[in-house]
Amino acid sequence: MTSPQFKELHRAYGFDEVAIVPGDLTINPDQTNIDFKVDNLTFSIPVIAAAMDAVTDTGFAIKMSKLGGLAVLNLEGIQTRYDNPEEILAEIAQAPGGEVTSLLQKVYSQPIKESLISQRIQEIKGGGAVCAVSVTPANTKRFAPVASEAQADILVVQSTVTTARHISKSYRGLIFSELCQSMSMPVIVGNCVNYSACLELMRTGICGVLVGVGPGAACTTREVLGVGVPQITATMDCAAARDTYFNESGRYVPIITDGGFRRGGEVCKAVAAGADAVMLGSIFAQAKEAPGRGYHWGMSHPHPALPRGTRIEVGTTGSLEQILFGPTSVTDGSQNLVGALRTAMGVCGASTIKEMHQAKIVIAPAITTEGKFWQLSKL
Amino acid sequence: MTSPQFKELHRAYGFDEVAIVPGDLTINPDQTNIDFKVDNLTFSIPVIAAAMDAVTDTGFAIKMSKLGGLAVLNLEGIQTRYDNPEEILAEIAQAPGGEVTSLLQKVYSQPIKESLISQRIQEIKGGGAVCAVSVTPANTKRFAPVASEAQADILVVQSTVTTARHISKSYRGLIFSELCQSMSMPVIVGNCVNYSACLELMRTGICGVLVGVGPGAACTTREVLGVGVPQITATMDCAAARDTYFNESGRYVPIITDGGFRRGGEVCKAVAAGADAVMLGSIFAQAKEAPGRGYHWGMSHPHPALPRGTRIEVGTTGSLEQILFGPTSVTDGSQNLVGALRTAMGVCGASTIKEMHQAKIVIAPAITTEGKFWQLSKL
Amino acid sequence: MTSPQFKELHRAYGFDEVAIVPGDLTINPDQTNIDFKVDNLTFSIPVIAAAMDAVTDTGFAIKMSKLGGLAVLNLEGIQTRYDNPEEILAEIAQAPGGEVTSLLQKVYSQPIKESLISQRIQEIKGGGAVCAVSVTPANTKRFAPVASEAQADILVVQSTVTTARHISKSYRGLIFSELCQSMSMPVIVGNCVNYSACLELMRTGICGVLVGVGPGAACTTREVLGVGVPQITATMDCAAARDTYFNESGRYVPIITDGGFRRGGEVCKAVAAGADAVMLGSIFAQAKEAPGRGYHWGMSHPHPALPRGTRIEVGTTGSLEQILFGPTSVTDGSQNLVGALRTAMGVCGASTIKEMHQAKIVIAPAITTEGKFWQLSKL
Amino acid sequence: MTSPQFKELHRAYGFDEVAIVPGDLTINPDQTNIDFKVDNLTFSIPVIAAAMDAVTDTGFAIKMSKLGGLAVLNLEGIQTRYDNPEEILAEIAQAPGGEVTSLLQKVYSQPIKESLISQRIQEIKGGGAVCAVSVTPANTKRFAPVASEAQADILVVQSTVTTARHISKSYRGLIFSELCQSMSMPVIVGNCVNYSACLELMRTGICGVLVGVGPGAACTTREVLGVGVPQITATMDCAAARDTYFNESGRYVPIITDGGFRRGGEVCKAVAAGADAVMLGSIFAQAKEAPGRGYHWGMSHPHPALPRGTRIEVGTTGSLEQILFGPTSVTDGSQNLVGALRTAMGVCGASTIKEMHQAKIVIAPAITTEGKFWQLSKL
Repeated sequence: MTSPQFKELHRAYGFDEVAIVPGDLTINPDQTNIDFKVDNLTFSIPVIAAAMDAVTDTGFAIKMSKLGGLAVLNLEGIQTRYDNPEEILAEIAQAPGGEVTSLLQKVYSQPIKESLISQRIQEIKGGGAVCAVSVTPANTKRFAPVASEAQADILVVQSTVTTARHISKSYRGLIFSELCQSMSMPVIVGNCVNYSACLELMRTGICGVLVGVGPGAACTTREVLGVGVPQITATMDCAAARDTYFNESGRYVPIITDGGFRRGGEVCKAVAAGADAVMLGSIFAQAKEAPGRGYHWGMSHPHPALPRGTRIEVGTTGSLEQILFGPTSVTDGSQNLVGALRTAMGVCGASTIKEMHQAKIVIAPAITTEGKFWQLSKL
Repeated sequence: MTSPQFKELHRAYGFDEVAIVPGDLTINPDQTNIDFKVDNLTFSIPVIAAAMDAVTDTGFAIKMSKLGGLAVLNLEGIQTRYDNPEEILAEIAQAPGGEVTSLLQKVYSQPIKESLISQRIQEIKGGGAVCAVSVTPANTKRFAPVASEAQADILVVQSTVTTARHISKSYRGLIFSELCQSMSMPVIVGNCVNYSACLELMRTGICGVLVGVGPGAACTTREVLGVGVPQITATMDCAAARDTYFNESGRYVPIITDGGFRRGGEVCKAVAAGADAVMLGSIFAQAKEAPGRGYHWGMSHPHPALPRGTRIEVGTTGSLEQILFGPTSVTDGSQNLVGALRTAMGVCGASTIKEMHQAKIVIAPAITTEGKFWQLSKL
Repeated sequence: MTSPQFKELHRAYGFDEVAIVPGDLTINPDQTNIDFKVDNLTFSIPVIAAAMDAVTDTGFAIKMSKLGGLAVLNLEGIQTRYDNPEEILAEIAQAPGGEVTSLLQKVYSQPIKESLISQRIQEIKGGGAVCAVSVTPANTKRFAPVASEAQADILVVQSTVTTARHISKSYRGLIFSELCQSMSMPVIVGNCVNYSACLELMRTGICGVLVGVGPGAACTTREVLGVGVPQITATMDCAAARDTYFNESGRYVPIITDGGFRRGGEVCKAVAAGADAVMLGSIFAQAKEAPGRGYHWGMSHPHPALPRGTRIEVGTTGSLEQILFGPTSVTDGSQNLVGALRTAMGVCGASTIKEMHQAKIVIAPAITTEGKFWQLSKL
Repeated sequence: MTSPQFKELHRAYGFDEVAIVPGDLTINPDQTNIDFKVDNLTFSIPVIAAAMDAVTDTGFAIKMSKLGGLAVLNLEGIQTRYDNPEEILAEIAQAPGGEVTSLLQKVYSQPIKESLISQRIQEIKGGGAVCAVSVTPANTKRFAPVASEAQADILVVQSTVTTARHISKSYRGLIFSELCQSMSMPVIVGNCVNYSACLELMRTGICGVLVGVGPGAACTTREVLGVGVPQITATMDCAAARDTYFNESGRYVPIITDGGFRRGGEVCKAVAAGADAVMLGSIFAQAKEAPGRGYHWGMSHPHPALPRGTRIEVGTTGSLEQILFGPTSVTDGSQNLVGALRTAMGVCGASTIKEMHQAKIVIAPAITTEGKFWQLSKL
């Protein structure tokens, strides 16, 4: 007897399972244009620092803006709970491994101060930077007006999974179309990993979508909840939604692949898979300027009842400028990310990010790649 | 010359090879209903403790029932062979690794006492709990009436593989339709991994099917016999049988995925694959209340001629209540299983177990998942 | 531009990538019949010891025959080059790892003595055993008549790859149809891994085919030559050839899967994939009776110019009888192989080897199988 | 809602994922012909030493030519930057791991001397060898005439990815059709991994294509840029281009698989996948005659801003002659590469390289291959 199919299973792919195929034409890296646009704002590099407390503080945001990118400040993290966040950050970095989750649960149980929200935004704006801030959907109605009044430039509404429709007893679901109309600044929403959910979000009028559930280095969502889609497939599905939406509306809403990056190669793959920009966490946590002091942890980590994360020791490897632009003597791809992207675009003959979306990708699992004999034998 | 095909091979998937895709709609976890029904009995959580001696004794069964779930007492294990099982359990926990299989073979060669069957059932019932007990098919005719008389609430007939038709010289095959008619309590049968065998079992009138051959942490059936089907595919095939049977009979027979669980993520995946409930062994062996004292072993392990199992040291990580409901500072997904299930249902927009059966699943091998750089590099 | 396909690639599967699916019917293991026939000879177990010097000597062959199976003596190995093979075997077992290949190259450069061929055969026959002997194709014309005269019962003609057609300058290709007509004993030929080559071999009139190139534990053919087909696919393709040949000729020529076995589970899988019997090397090298003294090496290992093999330390784990029939306290599947096969046939409802050929197999990679958390984490 | 497909993903395969299937006919290895032709030059073995500084210097090139193969001297490496390259090579071999990339960046920043180009070519020619030299596309116009005047026999134009069309501000793109017409010696171009790019290159009139991007042991292009195609698929695609081009032009342009080889098995697989010859780096860096002194590094490694490579310690394992022809006591396939190729051709019944292109290949991942139990368990 043949078994009827209970449900269909499609294969999803992650960074380590694909490779970019060189083009029939090549182009010099210095002739590539990698501009990234959100609404009316243009950035000279398509790289965003994540709204994580080990990555972005006000100083980091200013530096990132000067280098042509963007950093997002978490309005529900340490920066807005503590007048002196440095003390807390030092304490987290020094905590023994076994105690860090309890400590984070305690640290993040302190109340958020609206006055600190305004203060942090003003510090960033005062440094001459574009200021992006993030809130969770549940707190958007409370904090978004504060951010708006403090003249933030971009509002990011972010949770593990955010959809256009949410059912809740405790608060009236956030209506993104209303939010977009009430805010003068562009709204980016995430995270999201599939075509239909992404398309629904875009139709609310938002200006960008964050793509990725569960891939981050500091995130254990996939282990704890079983939920997640590997980044290449997630990016390709959301890129398809972007193109569908562009065809129906004429409005181009960029997608930003968020999480799971360790090296320049993955930035290149995300763009080849359709990303307009990438959001990096753990790579930037390795910067000298990062507030994490060589450590990194996820924003679901401090959850009081179901923590999903690990604090990982990423080390401090170089300056933010080196990580982005080199020069470097590091050969593992963790520095000169922008150089890597331009070089990959060069061998694919892509002069813009949109042309790079046309690059061919093959499925080629890293684990079976030839030539890595010596490296593998050391495992 | 083209080779004619000797037999067709289909791909089967296990927990580590799939991930759940978030929905287009989300729902607050506290608005999910995760009730599980067997015949006329309703449990507030779809979680069952396995009929294994390292997991369920009378005290554990009472606690599990109070917390809303169910535990199954093995009527052919240590509890019914020894008046004082604590001594034996302590001996097993203290045995050196090299001697444990011989010890188990000896321990399980002691005769089962019918008086102890009655006594253990009465202890559980006396604690105010729903009492489920398990027997093997070969011993069902002998022990089921004893259990029935002692007023057990659920009878589980379980062996590595149980089918509706068994050929034997030594005993007349057990006829499940006769068994169901002769028993006043509901009968659950297992284990089973494929559509047609599951459908045949359901047609005998039983009230539940255990799904899974060979996946358990303490089981080496797959190495020894080469037999087994990974749990996602096994669950999907048996879920299809359940739906076929419901369509032909109007009777909904729940399927219970049994074995191979290590973390909340797998509980969520089993339910998304079609399970109505899950049966856990090694996770519960880690509870403070578990009789295994930090150890776990399989029920095929003591086989005198062909032992299939290993005693594994699982450790003791928390109370049963913490494992089920948290709160926890453990971030690997081994605690707050119910919270994990409700949260996963929330991001899939599923308000009931049956709605969660509709969640989309993708094939996404854990081993190639991005972002786990630091963890993998430690392997 | 779409790339035209240079050649088509099909997927081949090995033991670790598949699992047997239980049947809709089960049967008691003691009611299974596992007879194996070669021409007019019947063996009560479908298990053959390989023609390797670490496995089969005269004593081992006699013991194996008494237990119902068959062992093949290598007529071009140590037993027929040395009057006192024990000395040489001890020397090999004691050689340091770095020197063993050179030693083997030297040991196997000694000439083969025809008188020893006769003597060894007579020793085996004198022990009341069925006597099977192996020669390479290049030496068949020289040694087969000697073996025939000494009244061997089965002739095995074996090299890494043997086909019905061989082109050579140095000797006129062996014509198997002529060989079969000139010999009174049945001829088994190998090795072979694909449908068309197997079918051609069967059409020459031989009585059995050995299946497997490159899978053995002591063999590095796949690394050195890049040649090999994993055993499940090789077995299925040759089983298809056997069935085609049976349909065209009415003659049933058994196929014997040779190499790559480590545990009972693989014996069960080979039979489910279509094997009529299995030939084991490294598992039997672990027997107390094995001449290898806890070591094992391949017969391509001593090649003077291109050695393909490794001497591996397999240890001595039990008696041949225990390995075949148990009882055992070993739970990894390396003992009681016959019990494992009968049990697997039982859960598949197969009462004969031919019925077991009908068992369903699924693709289920061991590396991703759930539940092996603790084991894997120890890697 | 079904997601429209953003782009199609095809599976690509590497050496470790395939195996060669034996033929229906076998042939003695000594009856195989493995000649390789480039334009009017014929080599008796299809093996080329890479244009890498750890592999080819003038002495190595002379030896390689005497043995029937070809070695390519890098005209932009240490040999043409330093009068006394031995000193520099010793310094690299002695540098601590942490300092080697900086050292290489410094070493390769010294200017190339045209006089040394002429001198090295004359040294090779003076040794009676065929002289092949390599340049990058950017420097071809400058160095090719120098090489031509010094009477080099073959010009290799090589960069990570080379296409028939390159867009650059800093230099007018190299036009290969003009180059081929202006040079009296044959031109080989690389690297290339796909059908259409390879076909375009062949149409310019070149005499050979190097196949492979990112697979080499000393190369981290795939990690840094995300770019690369595994070698079996790359070879098959370029072989298809070669056949298309032959059909349209009547000119047979050989393809040379370059990079990722560790053992003879891979040489055999590359040829079975369609390669006319192979180019080896790290295997030859292990030769006693290799200038690398037991070390190997990639030619993208010294890049000043984005180094892509690692220096690996390959050790010194034997003479070049042993590596190519044996005899050997090494059983891992790293020696007697030519013997391995002839033996593999023998079991496939292929008497020429072109017949070996017809051999059947199956997908058979090494990691799941049976029989490697002991080896794997040592990982």
